[in-house]
Amino acid sequence: MDIATIIGVIFGLFCIIWSILLGGSILTFWDLPSVVVVVGGGIAASLISYKLAEVKLIMKVVVKVFIGKESSPIDTIKQMIELSQKARRDGLLSLEAEQENIKDEFLKESLQLVVDGVEPEIIVESMDLEIENMKARHDKGTGLFKTMAAQFPAWGMIGTLIGLIQLLKSLDDPSKIGPAMAVALITTFYGSVLANFICNPIANKLSLKSKEEIREKRMVIEGVLSIQAGENPKILEHKLKTFLSPKQKHEYENTLTDGSEKQDGRNG
Amino acid sequence: MDIATIIGVIFGLFCIIWSILLGGSILTFWDLPSVVVVVGGGIAASLISYKLAEVKLIMKVVVKVFIGKESSPIDTIKQMIELSQKARRDGLLSLEAEQENIKDEFLKESLQLVVDGVEPEIIVESMDLEIENMKARHDKGTGLFKTMAAQFPAWGMIGTLIGLIQLLKSLDDPSKIGPAMAVALITTFYGSVLANFICNPIANKLSLKSKEEIREKRMVIEGVLSIQAGENPKILEHKLKTFLSPKQKHEYENTLTDGSEKQDGRNG
Amino acid sequence: MDIATIIGVIFGLFCIIWSILLGGSILTFWDLPSVVVVVGGGIAASLISYKLAEVKLIMKVVVKVFIGKESSPIDTIKQMIELSQKARRDGLLSLEAEQENIKDEFLKESLQLVVDGVEPEIIVESMDLEIENMKARHDKGTGLFKTMAAQFPAWGMIGTLIGLIQLLKSLDDPSKIGPAMAVALITTFYGSVLANFICNPIANKLSLKSKEEIREKRMVIEGVLSIQAGENPKILEHKLKTFLSPKQKHEYENTLTDGSEKQDGRNG
Amino acid sequence: MDIATIIGVIFGLFCIIWSILLGGSILTFWDLPSVVVVVGGGIAASLISYKLAEVKLIMKVVVKVFIGKESSPIDTIKQMIELSQKARRDGLLSLEAEQENIKDEFLKESLQLVVDGVEPEIIVESMDLEIENMKARHDKGTGLFKTMAAQFPAWGMIGTLIGLIQLLKSLDDPSKIGPAMAVALITTFYGSVLANFICNPIANKLSLKSKEEIREKRMVIEGVLSIQAGENPKILEHKLKTFLSPKQKHEYENTLTDGSEKQDGRNG
Amino acid sequence: MDIATIIGVIFGLFCIIWSILLGGSILTFWDLPSVVVVVGGGIAASLISYKLAEVKLIMKVVVKVFIGKESSPIDTIKQMIELSQKARRDGLLSLEAEQENIKDEFLKESLQLVVDGVEPEIIVESMDLEIENMKARHDKGTGLFKTMAAQFPAWGMIGTLIGLIQLLKSLDDPSKIGPAMAVALITTFYGSVLANFICNPIANKLSLKSKEEIREKRMVIEGVLSIQAGENPKILEHKLKTFLSPKQKHEYENTLTDGSEKQDGRNG
Repeated sequence: MDIATIIGVIFGLFCIIWSILLGGSILTFWDLPSVVVVVGGGIAASLISYKLAEVKLIMKVVVKVFIGKESSPIDTIKQMIELSQKARRDGLLSLEAEQENIKDEFLKESLQLVVDGVEPEIIVESMDLEIENMKARHDKGTGLFKTMAAQFPAWGMIGTLIGLIQLLKSLDDPSKIGPAMAVALITTFYGSVLANFICNPIANKLSLKSKEEIREKRMVIEGVLSIQAGENPKILEHKLKTFLSPKQKHEYENTLTDGSEKQDGRNG
Repeated sequence: MDIATIIGVIFGLFCIIWSILLGGSILTFWDLPSVVVVVGGGIAASLISYKLAEVKLIMKVVVKVFIGKESSPIDTIKQMIELSQKARRDGLLSLEAEQENIKDEFLKESLQLVVDGVEPEIIVESMDLEIENMKARHDKGTGLFKTMAAQFPAWGMIGTLIGLIQLLKSLDDPSKIGPAMAVALITTFYGSVLANFICNPIANKLSLKSKEEIREKRMVIEGVLSIQAGENPKILEHKLKTFLSPKQKHEYENTLTDGSEKQDGRNG
Repeated sequence: MDIATIIGVIFGLFCIIWSILLGGSILTFWDLPSVVVVVGGGIAASLISYKLAEVKLIMKVVVKVFIGKESSPIDTIKQMIELSQKARRDGLLSLEAEQENIKDEFLKESLQLVVDGVEPEIIVESMDLEIENMKARHDKGTGLFKTMAAQFPAWGMIGTLIGLIQLLKSLDDPSKIGPAMAVALITTFYGSVLANFICNPIANKLSLKSKEEIREKRMVIEGVLSIQAGENPKILEHKLKTFLSPKQKHEYENTLTDGSEKQDGRNG
Repeated sequence: MDIATIIGVIFGLFCIIWSILLGGSILTFWDLPSVVVVVGGGIAASLISYKLAEVKLIMKVVVKVFIGKESSPIDTIKQMIELSQKARRDGLLSLEAEQENIKDEFLKESLQLVVDGVEPEIIVESMDLEIENMKARHDKGTGLFKTMAAQFPAWGMIGTLIGLIQLLKSLDDPSKIGPAMAVALITTFYGSVLANFICNPIANKLSLKSKEEIREKRMVIEGVLSIQAGENPKILEHKLKTFLSPKQKHEYENTLTDGSEKQDGRNG
Repeated sequence: MDIATIIGVIFGLFCIIWSILLGGSILTFWDLPSVVVVVGGGIAASLISYKLAEVKLIMKVVVKVFIGKESSPIDTIKQMIELSQKARRDGLLSLEAEQENIKDEFLKESLQLVVDGVEPEIIVESMDLEIENMKARHDKGTGLFKTMAAQFPAWGMIGTLIGLIQLLKSLDDPSKIGPAMAVALITTFYGSVLANFICNPIANKLSLKSKEEIREKRMVIEGVLSIQAGENPKILEHKLKTFLSPKQKHEYENTLTDGSEKQDGRNG
């Protein structure tokens, strides 16, 4: 789990709670019916569009995205360069033996196709299809949270309208107007916090993560095709390095000394 | 009908009604003129853009989407693999006899073209045209509900403005201001509920369903072209499996034992 | 003129007027300065972006879209199949004699190019250009009404601000506050009605109509190219039918019995 | 300068001023600090994103768009048809002599490439690049005014918030609340007028003008390639006419009688 | 650092502070809890979506964009024309010696590939990949500031809701309502200023800068390919000049006299 996410969650909660406590009790902001209208209404409206199985799947993806460990494009690049060198020296079939050392499922699968002698066009087509379909599943997840980020404030407003209409219908006791209005506004508060502190950040995170995963998979495709074509490992390295950010490039250069030793040892 | 949709509808209604009952009678929220302005105005404005025949057609599509039974990509994949094996063994013409076992209309139609000896380019072109035109019809449906989701809150505001203007014109009796304002706000309430609980979820559902149907049809095209090209059923299976979600892939693996037996029986 | 449009206009007007009459006189909602600010301001701001000749042209297009009679893709399909049969039997040059029976200007023009022996690539290019340029003109019309749909509420708010500022400057007589505020709100009411009841529906209608016309023109291009290539009329029929909605397909099948008779008579 | 722009500006100013004068003095709406916050803040925030040289350049483009005279696609078409006839009769090199009669810089430049014997692919590539880069510059201008159209209302709200906060801090004298609130609202009024009467129309106009210019340049490319390929002037005319609106087509047909005479005279 | 940015920042601050001082003390607008809710909440919600390493990287990019010196496309064009002339005279390998005079890293890298004899398709592919990946990194930066520009006003509203709810809960002392409401509104003020004065301008600037850099890199690719193909330097110049704005073209022509002398000297 990324440290920024943890900091963000804790810091955000602190900001809300501290600023509430400055002005009074936090109990002022607890109102069960308001929770039911906003959370219930928002989730209900989202459920109408999504299948239950999909919602479960999306929740798993969210957990994985926030808790799962980071993938390392640097390791993948180094491994592909090693594989490229091995393939040029010992032929493509020699890659079969290397398969068990590969952790990246996607790389493993594409190399299997190379070893099986499938033509490059079909490998690209098949792998592109896999990326495209993965993207479609990710987009569904992002879409669910974007839908909820739009639904919660809308149900916050619906709750506030319910409160206001009931308040205005019976203005007998002026001293009750203030507290009733406060309660009516609580749903709007819930809607805003849920949308801006929970749903929008999750949707953003999913979308960024998805782009990153797609880029890494595209990098693997580039690498596998280059290995299959028997391209020079230097060209391969140049191509793959463009996928790294400047910082990652720097990191990559640093690990290269150890990397090349380990590589020599492994290939020797 | 998907269970999540039913849960969503019932839960959403419960949330609104319960939170209203907590604060007073539900009759406070019934006002016929408000219904007429919001529902009538919203539908009227939508009717100006769409033809009556289209609106009827879209309503049928909505009913079908919410009540129709789910299609199963897994069955389609298994059937296409069987067909592929049969075609490699007995020739493409042997597929003609299999046609009556095929339920998917789109698959049937494309296979007929294969049996008729039409070239692959023309099959792709003709099938792509069919998908594209289906998408255009679906987009019209999504568009109608998105239009209504924008129109209802707008007419809610128009209704509230009518109420406010009339209220402000004659401020004789201060005790009537509250209730009159409550009535004026009811149209805004109607507009928000109609947009967020009815129209937006339906538009979302139609759009998701449309994407799913397109993906399944694309899968069929991939499969049919592979069958026509006489590709290895293993490659075909690999390609088609990329269209499945991880969960569906798992399901597919599970059904494979029974499936392969059934398949053996059928092909034997 | 489509029946749904007429129903929409009448029903929408009824909803607004009825709900106003329930609460008071309709004269409460008439205020000439408010009309001037909202309608005048909105039109003035739109005129700055569009040329006068364009505005006139767009108005003509709008009238044509709402009053002009519907085109029939079914007739066009049947005619193209007849032409295809004739061309296969008597050669492409025989189509010259058929030209006078063709009502669709676009089909006529493309067939003339076929008869003139122009190569298919140049026909496609020239016809695509025509569609593209037609689309650009349509988009201008849609754009004008979208611009106005954004301008009218903005000028409604400007009018309300003018009223509020003047009201707040001189709060001498509290009994005048209400009516003055009512008048200030009337501009917002005008802006909302103009945007949601007039401009947005027209923009939607233009956009839908434009897509439909483009699809029909694309259908004609597909048909003409198929005729020129001497493709089997069965394949042609299959291709063209994909452009029809399920309902139109059904209608097409129904008219086929009469159609084929008429066709026989004409071709015999 | 297009007559519609002048009418729009005058009519818009009249609408605002007349409706203000109906309710009181126009001096009520003048408040220097409000001007400073809205205009100053909006321009300051826009300056942070754009370079000073760019802003100057954009201002020049705006002046040119509003004051510069209209280009005439009809004249360009007629000239290209003449050039096509001349090129077919006397060879491509004969176009060199015609260059001084050509006013359109873009046409001149492309013809020079034709005369220089550059291959069609390189001409298309080079001219497409020129269009693309021109579009990028235009988009920057449209972007600046869209940015300001979003900034002005935002600063209007900031100004109103400043006024409201100061007003609420010291509620000593109730008689001053009204006028203070009026002044606070003036910034919102300024922001709305600047965005909707100035910036949005200019952004629209620039965007429409840019599309028009691109279309005319595309027409020139089509024409020049056709001339280079030695295509029949009839086909060329057909292609170029698709770029005209129906009204321009009609105009073109009308001017043709004189045009053909002039053309005969020039070519004879 | 561009002069317009400095002017914008100073002028914007002046506008806000001056208009506040006109109405009272600037201390009225300082409230620590409000700062915590808006700034803290907005940053917290943004941190959940972005990794800490990315945030650091983006901050570096922002500093570089605002303080780094402008690149000069004119110098790059002149250098590429020189290189083109040298390559035609002395062969592609002679470019190796020129490498140390080249400051642009991207140009250096692509020329190295040319000297290494890599085929043009692979150079384009590899360089396009680099541009694409650079664009992805820039988009992340723009995305972070767009996210914050949406988060700050949302947290401003959350802060105001907290204040309002607490205020309404205990309406004992009417004289405190005003100041409490003023404090509640301060968070909205903070949110608006942060979004419109800080985040939106930075996001705009990053996005414009990114487009500019991409265009310059595309120009380098065009130039390098032209050099590799041994195209006429005149054609190369024509192509590259289309990347310049009219003003830059003018500047380019002006510097050409000195340029050609310097060029002669260097090449002689």
